[in-house]
Amino acid sequence: MSSERLIEDFNAGKPAALARVVSIVENHREGFEEILSTLHSRTGRAKRIGLTGPPGAGKSTITALLVKNFRDAGLRVGVIAVDPTSPFTGGALLGDRVRMENVALDPGVFIRSMATRGSLGGLAAATRETADVLDAFGFDRLLIETVGVGQSELDVARTADSTVLILVPESGDSIQTLKAGVMEVADIFVVNKADRPGADRLRNDVELMLGLRKGVSFGNVPAHHGVDLKRVNPARVAREAAAAANQTVWTPPVLSAVATKQEGITEIVAALDRHFAYLQQSGTLRERRRERMRERVMDVVERKVSERLWKDPGTRAWLEEQLPSVEGGTSTPFAVADQLLRQSGELVRGEQRT
Amino acid sequence: MSSERLIEDFNAGKPAALARVVSIVENHREGFEEILSTLHSRTGRAKRIGLTGPPGAGKSTITALLVKNFRDAGLRVGVIAVDPTSPFTGGALLGDRVRMENVALDPGVFIRSMATRGSLGGLAAATRETADVLDAFGFDRLLIETVGVGQSELDVARTADSTVLILVPESGDSIQTLKAGVMEVADIFVVNKADRPGADRLRNDVELMLGLRKGVSFGNVPAHHGVDLKRVNPARVAREAAAAANQTVWTPPVLSAVATKQEGITEIVAALDRHFAYLQQSGTLRERRRERMRERVMDVVERKVSERLWKDPGTRAWLEEQLPSVEGGTSTPFAVADQLLRQSGELVRGEQRT
Repeated sequence: MSSERLIEDFNAGKPAALARVVSIVENHREGFEEILSTLHSRTGRAKRIGLTGPPGAGKSTITALLVKNFRDAGLRVGVIAVDPTSPFTGGALLGDRVRMENVALDPGVFIRSMATRGSLGGLAAATRETADVLDAFGFDRLLIETVGVGQSELDVARTADSTVLILVPESGDSIQTLKAGVMEVADIFVVNKADRPGADRLRNDVELMLGLRKGVSFGNVPAHHGVDLKRVNPARVAREAAAAANQTVWTPPVLSAVATKQEGITEIVAALDRHFAYLQQSGTLRERRRERMRERVMDVVERKVSERLWKDPGTRAWLEEQLPSVEGGTSTPFAVADQLLRQSGELVRGEQRT
Repeated sequence: MSSERLIEDFNAGKPAALARVVSIVENHREGFEEILSTLHSRTGRAKRIGLTGPPGAGKSTITALLVKNFRDAGLRVGVIAVDPTSPFTGGALLGDRVRMENVALDPGVFIRSMATRGSLGGLAAATRETADVLDAFGFDRLLIETVGVGQSELDVARTADSTVLILVPESGDSIQTLKAGVMEVADIFVVNKADRPGADRLRNDVELMLGLRKGVSFGNVPAHHGVDLKRVNPARVAREAAAAANQTVWTPPVLSAVATKQEGITEIVAALDRHFAYLQQSGTLRERRRERMRERVMDVVERKVSERLWKDPGTRAWLEEQLPSVEGGTSTPFAVADQLLRQSGELVRGEQRT
């Protein structure tokens, strides 16, 4: 099928064309840049929602319920699962609490797993590109599910307009498994399995950490769940600075949910709506999307440089010749890198080596 | 302190100089490339051991016991903790089963946490550099502890000479939380908490997955722990190919341990010794270290390009000017990236823009 015909079918909303385009883009097959360039002007309409949290927090169940909620409201939903533990990744289902099959058969829903992606190309960059494709296809909401543990996964969470952090009371340690910085990235906190012991304490801990509780001296509060409450909280400091400057301020809500009983989902949807309204009114949406665009360009630049350098047989051969002296200690990685770059200006510019 | 004096103190084995150098290198402070270049010829002596596995598998306890074992043998040990759940990261201790304080006060042990590192610069690249510093300082063993969940964390595991994957029976789901590819990276498997129910089944599952059990038709074996046993196993295929070519073959052992009772540690040490002997005899060590050196150079090249481009005020200003047209849809990230590279040859070469 020609590239023009594929784009035509894509623009006409044909599901097969969508699957084909996503696959070409994900695997960086011949022509993926042209396709993304063609689709580019159609992006920017979808609201991108990140869902993150430790393994076992119930992210997938909440994602499935959000899909159902959005579908009931007539919205089309794309799901990008970056969490290897997610049932959406197509592996074994962790449970049948939610009927994933119904979701999977609905033409208004598209699910894509990126969990088994190799290490070539950044996960965050790949997620942004797949999200752009789904956005251009016309999905109204994009749900990006990622386990909040690794660094790449935190970078993925940063690609969303709104980020929901899902926590559970039973595993106090689980907060420790989160990458430092995840707490600061979250716009909405959800304490899932809120009917279990320890839920109130977890809520308190999170609120304390956010600086939402008044009249508490941080100096006297012991660290729960490994979270050092005495540490200055960047989110709180930013909020206070914004308030002092008379700007609109977003205070992250700490919601409760029991996803297995479908409780608390409409509250999450309402909080997402409030957050999106805040993003628009405060100008934060424009800032976040500009930042995303900046990172898009920088990703592409860095990827092009890597490809142009490492796919060039002459450069690879030259590098191999240098390795023995680096190993022997008569040269260093830095000296070789400097020389490689001095002689590769044309390659980086995209020209043939003369 | 001058850079020469610092290197002098470092070479003389002064702990304060080591801490200073690690800090300069980690934060890429002024002069870090010169320092790494100077130390480069002193690297290559330490054996680098990666320890990975899901949260709660007991990686830190086993790491601490390995430290004690190596210390008893008169060896000096460096620990690099990339796992945010690790007690070595300096956060809250998960338990006092092992007296971490003793380890921390021993001058023959150096512990460095990289868990709170930001996203600038790859985690794997940063780990390789810190490991080089510890190697040059004269540590005999480097233990690199990382949670086997995220993509960056898997890349870290790949930087070691030998990789130990630690699993526990109670959380069958935990294998699912591992990044695809972790199983293939492991040289030694350890079933920790082997006195608990399910340990035998986990051992069987791992051995089946490795293709170690004979007389079993894979087609009849159900998937346990979400692991699809029917999938062709790359490690097994590689082993069989190597055996057919009369090469030395490494069969990953599946060991048992009860770390809290200090059981199984000497067996892990023995397996590490056997694996290192195999690495040397088979030529795999040379290959792995060459691959590490190649990646070191490629890391440095890519980092230099990024720094030269993004720290240049002219380039940043030009990029900002392009963003509105990218957002408006009249240009694309690819067109801007191409133009940026066409006009940045001198910068990438390390020259001043004319």
